[in-house]
Amino acid sequence: MSAALENPSLLSLAAGFTDNGSLPLSCVNAAVEEIAQKDLKETLQYGSNQGRPRLRELLSEHLNQWEPELAVTPDSNSFFVTNGSQQAIYLAMQVLCEPGDIVLVDRPSYFVFLEMLKAMGVRAVSIPVDENGFIDGAGLAALLNRFQATGDSVRIKAVYVVSYYSNPSSRCLNSEEKSALATVLLANGLIVPVIEDAAYRDLYFSEKPETKSMLGMKVWDDFPKLYLSTLTKPFATGLKVGYGFCTDSDWLARMLHTKGHHDFGSANFCQAILERVIADGRFERQLSVIRPMYGRKMCVLHETLLHEGLEELGWSWSKPEGGLYLWLKGPEAIDTSLESKFCRSCIAAGVLYVPGGLCFDDDGPSNYVRLSYGVLNEAELGEAGRRFVRVAREFVS
Amino acid sequence: MSAALENPSLLSLAAGFTDNGSLPLSCVNAAVEEIAQKDLKETLQYGSNQGRPRLRELLSEHLNQWEPELAVTPDSNSFFVTNGSQQAIYLAMQVLCEPGDIVLVDRPSYFVFLEMLKAMGVRAVSIPVDENGFIDGAGLAALLNRFQATGDSVRIKAVYVVSYYSNPSSRCLNSEEKSALATVLLANGLIVPVIEDAAYRDLYFSEKPETKSMLGMKVWDDFPKLYLSTLTKPFATGLKVGYGFCTDSDWLARMLHTKGHHDFGSANFCQAILERVIADGRFERQLSVIRPMYGRKMCVLHETLLHEGLEELGWSWSKPEGGLYLWLKGPEAIDTSLESKFCRSCIAAGVLYVPGGLCFDDDGPSNYVRLSYGVLNEAELGEAGRRFVRVAREFVS
Repeated sequence: MSAALENPSLLSLAAGFTDNGSLPLSCVNAAVEEIAQKDLKETLQYGSNQGRPRLRELLSEHLNQWEPELAVTPDSNSFFVTNGSQQAIYLAMQVLCEPGDIVLVDRPSYFVFLEMLKAMGVRAVSIPVDENGFIDGAGLAALLNRFQATGDSVRIKAVYVVSYYSNPSSRCLNSEEKSALATVLLANGLIVPVIEDAAYRDLYFSEKPETKSMLGMKVWDDFPKLYLSTLTKPFATGLKVGYGFCTDSDWLARMLHTKGHHDFGSANFCQAILERVIADGRFERQLSVIRPMYGRKMCVLHETLLHEGLEELGWSWSKPEGGLYLWLKGPEAIDTSLESKFCRSCIAAGVLYVPGGLCFDDDGPSNYVRLSYGVLNEAELGEAGRRFVRVAREFVS
Repeated sequence: MSAALENPSLLSLAAGFTDNGSLPLSCVNAAVEEIAQKDLKETLQYGSNQGRPRLRELLSEHLNQWEPELAVTPDSNSFFVTNGSQQAIYLAMQVLCEPGDIVLVDRPSYFVFLEMLKAMGVRAVSIPVDENGFIDGAGLAALLNRFQATGDSVRIKAVYVVSYYSNPSSRCLNSEEKSALATVLLANGLIVPVIEDAAYRDLYFSEKPETKSMLGMKVWDDFPKLYLSTLTKPFATGLKVGYGFCTDSDWLARMLHTKGHHDFGSANFCQAILERVIADGRFERQLSVIRPMYGRKMCVLHETLLHEGLEELGWSWSKPEGGLYLWLKGPEAIDTSLESKFCRSCIAAGVLYVPGGLCFDDDGPSNYVRLSYGVLNEAELGEAGRRFVRVAREFVS
């Protein structure tokens, strides 16, 4: 198996990396050149723990433009800058949870988040969904009733959802689902902190997602909210600048206090580069280039799977409108886990994926697969897709 | 007091920031220009959790050049790259300690480290020193005996020292002290992980420090060791690239696992810049510029304090040979803490310092002061020094 993994012609649909060829190197170079011409040496000095004030202002303006009618004022002092959005998630959990606590998560959910909770001794419990993958309010009410009965309600410390072009499902939560979630939590007196992970919100292919964030929905008014996202997933992951916007000053203060111990501030220079390219519109221009590009890449993989006949083999998936992933449901009998025959066959055939089982809490199904079209070019995506379908064909029962 | 703090003419000898004017902005710009010319787009892609392989090789070569006779092989796979050395310290403590545990620390010690331990519920206990500030082996033996008697020995999980131009004392531990420390620990069967924080090792003024690191001393052979430092404190703090070298594969694996949850890798672009400037010698050239510059700045502050008569007022300090700090001992009667009259008087006089009490475990003296000559220019250092001595003169009892 390790020999197969070292196969140089292996094509990875697993890594959540972004497209290499379109990375805005000349744009970053120009920004650094301007910083040098203006002799802005402070960009190479320590910044602040919370992040560059001007960058936080720009973040606040950006959010205001997306959602002009926010229920909360997106004051720049409620923003904080992190080492990618991952650090924001980590800080949020670190200050909220103790071992034995429970976090309600979307189903499926971001697998690095689930692994992180496990390492913290925190239990992830899926928010029930219906057969179409939509949040099931009645199912959630029943779940919360059971927690009430066992006395576990008090251990529920947070709710976490990836609400736009989710990793792994590429779904956006719709308004009804978001409302149902809030309504059931309120009905059960569970006004716990909510984390809305919007890391992929900017990565729509052609149409901006319509659904408001929780920040803009009255029904979420009473909840402490952390809205988080990243500037560098859609721009240049190597700069690693994420951010959070927190509506609860105490929660924010505790996260900043802990960040002070983690690293007392993210790389100031990277923040300065982002500040510059956002302010002069180059950030938005780069996004307008990569959005249709990811749309095309998605289509190549999607259509390859279709044309090669994957649906006829009992697999199904939705065609996403943004994000980086295809989320495939295989026939019930197929086990896609890391140790499975299916996984070994894929590696032998020269294609890698993320086993869907990693994206569920403990009682999840094992017949899902996450494919990313982020890294590979169109020709490679076609080839990887063909390899995948070839293996799927061997596993028809 | 807050009005006084907003005084625009306030001169801060408190911040551990580095010299602004000498920051190598054109050097960084040139490195980015070269990266762009060579079209190295991968520098803007996610890197690995452990850090860029080539950078880790360079770190390994750097350490080998400093200490050709290391007792351990500084293999690049034993290095990891962090968000400044602070994250390396944090990870080390996070995976070693539980609330209620004890860490032995130098006296005085790095106050951000002490605050971090407090937040983790971990107790910092000073390694005893003699009247000249040297590690007191007999005192340590007695302390460990007391821990043995109370059953607290098992709670001692690590030893932490800033061994070169320490923050705050600017002292280097000498070989005898390092040996004594190891010998007493060994005699007590305390073979616990040791963290040698060498963040300031590169910041000597004229002569390279002679003392070997613990990595090069046979007496430390049996201890799991984490040697950590930073590339950006002496170069450009805004790039925030620290690193650790760990001799214990299990400890390293646990730190990397946790870093995977913190942020799964530090900003790849900053690492690529450092990689470039180290490989082509510009890093070392920048250091050769700033070393004598900090030496001159130290002299300005040191001589101002002398000429203004601070010694005659009962204050004493050593003239450092590297680092960023003067560590002043005031008359016993003087309380320099944040809430003290002395501190308020300094702020009113327009000068800020770090109260020395922050740099001790709970039973430390309160008549010390840390002054940093990192940020201010020479004229400002002179003025700040004069202000400080004026206040000290008011407090002669």
